[in-house]
Order: sequence, then structure tokens, then C-alpha cells
Amino acid sequence: MTDVAGTKTSTQLRITRQSPSYWRVTIDNPPINVMGPEMVVQFQEVIGALESDEDVKVVVFDSAVDDYFLNHSDFLAKLEDLTSLPAGPTGLPPWPDFLARLTRLPVVSIALIRGRATGNGSEITLACDMSFASREKTIISQWEVGVGMVAGGGPMARLPHLIGRSRALEILLSSEDLRAEQAEAYGYINRALPDVELDAFVEALATRIAKFDKWAIANTKRLVNTSLPPDVELGAGWEACIASLGRPAAQVGIKALLALGFHKPGDAEDRLGYYLGEIAHSPRD
Amino acid sequence: MTDVAGTKTSTQLRITRQSPSYWRVTIDNPPINVMGPEMVVQFQEVIGALESDEDVKVVVFDSAVDDYFLNHSDFLAKLEDLTSLPAGPTGLPPWPDFLARLTRLPVVSIALIRGRATGNGSEITLACDMSFASREKTIISQWEVGVGMVAGGGPMARLPHLIGRSRALEILLSSEDLRAEQAEAYGYINRALPDVELDAFVEALATRIAKFDKWAIANTKRLVNTSLPPDVELGAGWEACIASLGRPAAQVGIKALLALGFHKPGDAEDRLGYYLGEIAHSPRD
Amino acid sequence: MTDVAGTKTSTQLRITRQSPSYWRVTIDNPPINVMGPEMVVQFQEVIGALESDEDVKVVVFDSAVDDYFLNHSDFLAKLEDLTSLPAGPTGLPPWPDFLARLTRLPVVSIALIRGRATGNGSEITLACDMSFASREKTIISQWEVGVGMVAGGGPMARLPHLIGRSRALEILLSSEDLRAEQAEAYGYINRALPDVELDAFVEALATRIAKFDKWAIANTKRLVNTSLPPDVELGAGWEACIASLGRPAAQVGIKALLALGFHKPGDAEDRLGYYLGEIAHSPRD
Repeated sequence: MTDVAGTKTSTQLRITRQSPSYWRVTIDNPPINVMGPEMVVQFQEVIGALESDEDVKVVVFDSAVDDYFLNHSDFLAKLEDLTSLPAGPTGLPPWPDFLARLTRLPVVSIALIRGRATGNGSEITLACDMSFASREKTIISQWEVGVGMVAGGGPMARLPHLIGRSRALEILLSSEDLRAEQAEAYGYINRALPDVELDAFVEALATRIAKFDKWAIANTKRLVNTSLPPDVELGAGWEACIASLGRPAAQVGIKALLALGFHKPGDAEDRLGYYLGEIAHSPRD
Repeated sequence: MTDVAGTKTSTQLRITRQSPSYWRVTIDNPPINVMGPEMVVQFQEVIGALESDEDVKVVVFDSAVDDYFLNHSDFLAKLEDLTSLPAGPTGLPPWPDFLARLTRLPVVSIALIRGRATGNGSEITLACDMSFASREKTIISQWEVGVGMVAGGGPMARLPHLIGRSRALEILLSSEDLRAEQAEAYGYINRALPDVELDAFVEALATRIAKFDKWAIANTKRLVNTSLPPDVELGAGWEACIASLGRPAAQVGIKALLALGFHKPGDAEDRLGYYLGEIAHSPRD
Repeated sequence: MTDVAGTKTSTQLRITRQSPSYWRVTIDNPPINVMGPEMVVQFQEVIGALESDEDVKVVVFDSAVDDYFLNHSDFLAKLEDLTSLPAGPTGLPPWPDFLARLTRLPVVSIALIRGRATGNGSEITLACDMSFASREKTIISQWEVGVGMVAGGGPMARLPHLIGRSRALEILLSSEDLRAEQAEAYGYINRALPDVELDAFVEALATRIAKFDKWAIANTKRLVNTSLPPDVELGAGWEACIASLGRPAAQVGIKALLALGFHKPGDAEDRLGYYLGEIAHSPRD
């Protein structure tokens, strides 16, 4: 990450300081913004930078990759490269550690969503303080159950509090793609905005808040955070996710998806919800 | 229940195994689908069957009675026939026991609502994982306060978490009839669908989920369930309900409703919310 | 307050007993319904009267001042006149004490909102059991962060449970004005109604509930109240609010607003959200 370490050549997350008080973190891992171990390491660096800076008040997460905000994990990477990463300061593995710290950060976090927010993309949205999405170009989903997995970044802990247990279970257990308007109606995102208005809306909101007093922001957020589920729920979800990856159901499911074109640009990524219904077949039916 | 015990002649709940992984439970107690002690016993048998089956992954609750999904309790039955039933495995009386176990079941439960879901019908909806309702033909209500009662199946515990305290109190304290679109807007049900689309929507969702991996379903639901209120709240609600039935206000209220045609097909059942406003009169006003 | 004590000449809150079971509390502190220490004292008297009456079942809060339901605090009053008031029975200072007791009251409370509900007006709305607002004439906001303050009446404790953490943080951290339709879409209020229908709607609902049984109302509400955050969260919010008032950011912010016409009828009050964006400027930007 050039902005943090100044040395790496491969940068999947790019920090831009619009001003000392307003940062952007741009996700840039073309062609489809999957999240592998390297990006998880870079998310750790990002959260460390945000925590140690005294001036930053607002951070916006956006994407430089067309059609993808942040996608599912990198299933071509070695799982050990992820599971061998050291735990973060919360004691959680690095991805849930990042998400937990993002919610606790004395800085306002905003997800600016354009394109697919699948799995990890939904999880970072749920960990941000607010989210605004392109009405035309956003698809959001927790797809994991459809492929035989359990989600690893906390949606079981966060969605019921945000949108109620019934709609949380619909999203998680159906593993369907949701369009932005449905996500807005459910309260999954703050607002769906016309694509042409989205950038200006987020820019105005971010610059507005960045002018407010950091102490007032931090204390208000701290008091809202009493409503957060305990971090241990994120840990339990992560463990269930890793356990699911070791089971035949997920192995068979991911293999079947890959055979249909998953993990590269094309229809299997564009309409993942549909393809999950195609690959699934109960062994007893 | 013929499908469970194979012997009884009177069956108010009918289990249909569409496949080993996808069951239907059809509520069938014409003419108005009231819930008496016998139906409560049959709900216990249903939940026992669901818990002990290794293959079932999805259960849909629907109704065979026109205009009624599941209605209020049977006030012509003897109360002792209900209160003398043994507690279930949770230690709760059988109706809240059934509802608590339904939420904890490692099986996805879906309410397919067409017609009135009054009292118990709303309570089973709130205990299911998801609910989808006919836009034209659904009325949902917690009518109890309007007749001097407290609801016995947990809406005080569940509604505030699902739709917020303000709207929960509006529904409970106004005792009004809600149409499906209002219930959807409040998040009381997952979605209101055009009546002609409802069956196909639920069928597609149920068959989709029934092809997914049971372990992934069960673990995802288990982690979502950390957001459930403790079962003791259901017990407290049940006790308040039984206490309310012993008070003059409820006795007078139910008697006044019966005089207006309550408890049989007709206007008092069709427009129960309206009639609750008619019978009520404060002793001091 | 003439109705309670029968002696005071300056009455900012007026109790009207429509019937023994249905009271109105009318907020009347022209020209802009700010809340100073005297109004806080009168809210204490109101809640005491409601708690000690055996017949009252419904209380509606409304306003006699055009364009304002209940506004921000009185910044021209001496802060010591507020902070020197004795704690209430909950152990909390009188404003959060009133709000906590309102939620626990065995009486149904309804906010009838017409005009601005800024700061304290939003906080009493969140403490009421239900709220109904004029679609055309309502603006609701928690404006505090925008002027360098933390809100003192509990929105950090209540909003996340009511509308989800993301939208709660948007409202609190943006400090923006919300129109009634947006507030309804977020679940911040129960319903936004056409202005010409609002009074009749609330009157019908209040008289309906006032005819129901008080024991059933009180026990239903008691069981819903298990979902309330602990009162200590209101205390923590109040302390953060008082601390914020002692900091330069809030002092500078309030002074800048006053210079623009804040605290008297006019554009700075009408479009407070806009003016908060105008006065704010980060010292580092």
C-alpha cells in the first residue's frame, strides 16, 4: 500500500487523503475485486492508520473496479495463507478484527457502493456506520449458505439488529441477490440513490461531517455503540465459516460454481444468486 | 394427526412431505381456524416430528381454510383443557414451548399467509424464520388488549426487536387490523405479494433452500438466534395472558364480542378491529 | 402549571383532561418552543401527575405554537439553572428522568407532531410509545453534533434499537433536518399523515385506547419494555451532553449560530440543518 508503507508494488487498497479530516479508501483488485489474504493484510494496515491518526473524522470506502464494490473471498488463494495470519488487537482473526475495529473507530465510516457487494462487500457495509448505494448498479448479497458455507464476517451478528430477524434470515438463508431498492426498503443500506447523484451525495455528506467536532462525533458514536453485539459473536461466525470450508458440501459447491465460470468476469459472477440455485442439489432428494 | 400418529380421525394440522427435505404443515380447522387445546397438542406433535427428522430443511406453514391463516384461540373450549396440558421440553406451556422450539429449530420455517392471522396467527408468524403474505387477502393483528387480554404467544417479546418499540406498541395497544401492505412497510412480515404470485414465490424459495446444505443452514440460523429474546419472556407473556383471562374486563369483553357474532363466520370476525372499538367502554368515562 | 399546582402564572405545559382516561399535554412556550429549566421542572410535574393518577390511560403530547412541536434547549438561560435541579426518582437528572419514566409509565403516550421537533422534540418523541406527524409541516432532527454537542436526552440509546445502527448514526452524525416522510420511511416516527388528517387520526386512536382496560394496557407495555436499553445509558448521554457544553467547540458553534439568527423565529431556526453546515469549519482544514 503506497500511502501507508510507501514501498509495496501491489496495492489493493489505496488511501487518499482528500483533507486531513476526510479520507477515502479505494478497493482496487481487478478484474472482480475478490478479497484474498493480501487484501486482508492491507485492511489491517488501513485500520491501524485510521486509529493512529488524530485528524481524520470521516472515511469513505469505494471501489475503482467497474461493477464490483467488494466481492467474495479469493478461492484460488491457499486457505492457509489466510488462516495463518496473526490475530488482531481484538484477539479476533484479521478480517473480523478489522470489522470490529471499524465499528469502534472514533471516525465516521461510509460505504459508497456501486456494483456487487457480495459476501465481504456486504460485511464491510454492515460494519460501516452508514452506506449509500447506486440504485441502478448495486447488487448486495450474503451468498454463503447457497454454496454450503457460513459467512465469516459477522452478518449473523449484525443483520438481525439492523433489519429484524425475519429479513436477516431471508437474506442469509435464501442467499439471493438483492437489488439496491430492496436493500433500502429492508434497511440493509441507508439509502439507494440514482447513480448520477450518488457521488455528489456522499461527497457532500462526508465533507459536512468532516467539518464537525471530532470529540462530539466520537462520543456520540461511542454511545450508539452500546447497541453493538459483542465481538465474540464475530469470532463464532468466523469459526463456523472456517469449519464450513473444510466440509464436502462447500468443497463440492465451490468446485461446481468454478466449472460454471465463477471467479472471473461473466455471467456466473453477475448473476451469482441464480447460479447458486442451479448448482445446489440435495443428496437425499 | 394422520401423518404423525396414523390413528386420529380429527386432524387440524396436516403434514405433507413434498420431499424428504421440504415439508408443509397445513392448518385446517374450519370454518374459521381457531386454535383450541387439540390444535395445541398437534403443534407439539409437529415440532417433535420436525426436531427428530434428519432430512427436513424447510417447513412451510399454510392454511386450507379460506380467509383464515390461523385465528385467535377457541373461547368455547374449556380453559382447563388448555392450562392442564403438560409443559413442553423448554419448561414452557405447550403453545409458547412450540413457538420457542420453532425459532430454535435447525430447519427453515416459512409462514405463507392468506387470510386473517389474528392473535395466534400473528404469533406463529413472528416465530417463523420468514413470512410472505397475500397482498389482497391478508389481515394481521394482535387484538388482545382490545378485548381486555394480554397476548400469550410472545409478541411483546418479539415485535419490538423486529419492527421497533413504537410500531410494536401501536400494533399491540391499538389492537387494530393491519393490511398486508402496512405490515410489510412496518417489517412485521417479510413481503406482501400479489395473491396470484404468492404460492409460486414461496414454492420457489422453499425448494431453493431445501437444496442447500443442512449444516450450513443450521449453523447460520444458530448464530442469528443469539439475537432472540430469552425464552423466559415468552413465559412471562403467557402468565400475563392466563391472568388476564381470569379478570372481569376480558370476561365482559369476550361476552360482548360473542353477542355481536364473534367466533363464527361473519362481520365480527372479518372486521374484528372495528368491533373491538365498538364493545370497549371505560367504566369511568 | 395551573392544572397541577393551580398557582403559577407562567405555564409552558398545559394539561387538559379530555376525560379521566385521556389527557393532553400541550407545549406552549412561544415564539419557538425552546425548552429551558422552567419547562423541565414542569415536565417533572406532568410525569408525577400521570404516575399518581389511577384513571389516565392515554396521554397525547402536542403543541400550541405554530411551526414548532418542541425545540432545542434554551441557550439564553443559565446552564446552572438546569444543572442545579435535583435528580428525579430514577436517580437521573430531571430531563432524562422524565424521559425514562415516560417509557415506563403504565399509560400510553402519543406524540402528535406538527412543526419542528428538534433535539428535545425528537427525544420526547423517542420516549413516547408512538408518534404521528404532519406530513407537510414536520421537521425532525438531532442537530447536536453539528454544533459541537452531544445530545442529552437519549437518542444514542434509543435510535439504534428503533431504526438500526446505520440510520441512527446517519441522523445523529449528519445532524440534518429530516422531513416527515423520510422519518416514516426510517421508522423514526410511526406514521406521517396528511396535515388535515393528523388530528382526527390521533383523536380516534387515543379515544379508542382510552376505552380499553388499563391493566391489559399496562401489562402489555411492561412486557414490551424488556426491550428498552437500561436507564444508565440515558445518564451517560446526559453527562456527555453537559461535558460537550463546556468545550470550546460547542461554545464557538452556538455563538456562530446565534450571530446568524438562531434562537428566534426566522431562517436559522427554519433551516437549522443547512446553517449547521455553514457554521462548521474544521480548525485543521
